[in-house]
Amino acid sequence: METMGRHVIAELWECEFDKLNDVNFIERTFVDAALKAGAEVREVVFHKFAPQGVSGVVIISESHLTIHSFPEHGYASIDVYTCGDLDPTIAAKYIADALGSQTSEMTEIPRGMGPVTVGKARVTAHA
Amino acid sequence: METMGRHVIAELWECEFDKLNDVNFIERTFVDAALKAGAEVREVVFHKFAPQGVSGVVIISESHLTIHSFPEHGYASIDVYTCGDLDPTIAAKYIADALGSQTSEMTEIPRGMGPVTVGKARVTAHA
Repeated sequence: METMGRHVIAELWECEFDKLNDVNFIERTFVDAALKAGAEVREVVFHKFAPQGVSGVVIISESHLTIHSFPEHGYASIDVYTCGDLDPTIAAKYIADALGSQTSEMTEIPRGMGPVTVGKARVTAHA
Repeated sequence: METMGRHVIAELWECEFDKLNDVNFIERTFVDAALKAGAEVREVVFHKFAPQGVSGVVIISESHLTIHSFPEHGYASIDVYTCGDLDPTIAAKYIADALGSQTSEMTEIPRGMGPVTVGKARVTAHA
């Protein structure tokens, strides 16, 4: 398997409190997001924190998707990392929409290319 | 909980084949790395691919650690993301050493700060 991958780091703000605090909703959303991007799901682990917040991961054959949600701040920190021909932005945008994010920033970082990666990063921001 | 976090993206090259292909060694290394950084381990999931390669995650109270290894390329793609006062570079360096990486690049990206993050990223490369 080739090492090259695309890693989308997404900062999702102004999300809906109830969605950010619903571990079942988030797990379903993440599995759906992986499938929509064409990934093969291998492992699914989500954890609900007290009093609020969810962390979780979907390990896919092509790398992973993760989330850490902070309902009290309307914020979710997500990563979508894919190898091969998949497009991680499909999953990241699906998740942003599902969580009702009103402001998001997505940064794409190439992985497994050899040289330092940050110079190649692409930033997109929209409100 | 505050949203601010530190996310280290590490590209580890010239690692030892046998270590990159040993799911039990990698799992133990990642749990130890999390503990050395002072994290609280919540979930541990590692997956061995055929014919080779390991993917896995340690979810910590303070975010996560992940790996995707490509033994045939001597390459491991790792992420160490921590919130709070933890220093993710402690875990990332521990992992790089454990895998016998001869060349690594680590990029730190601030998370949960609000504005676009890439301009703040710090790159360190060493051979």
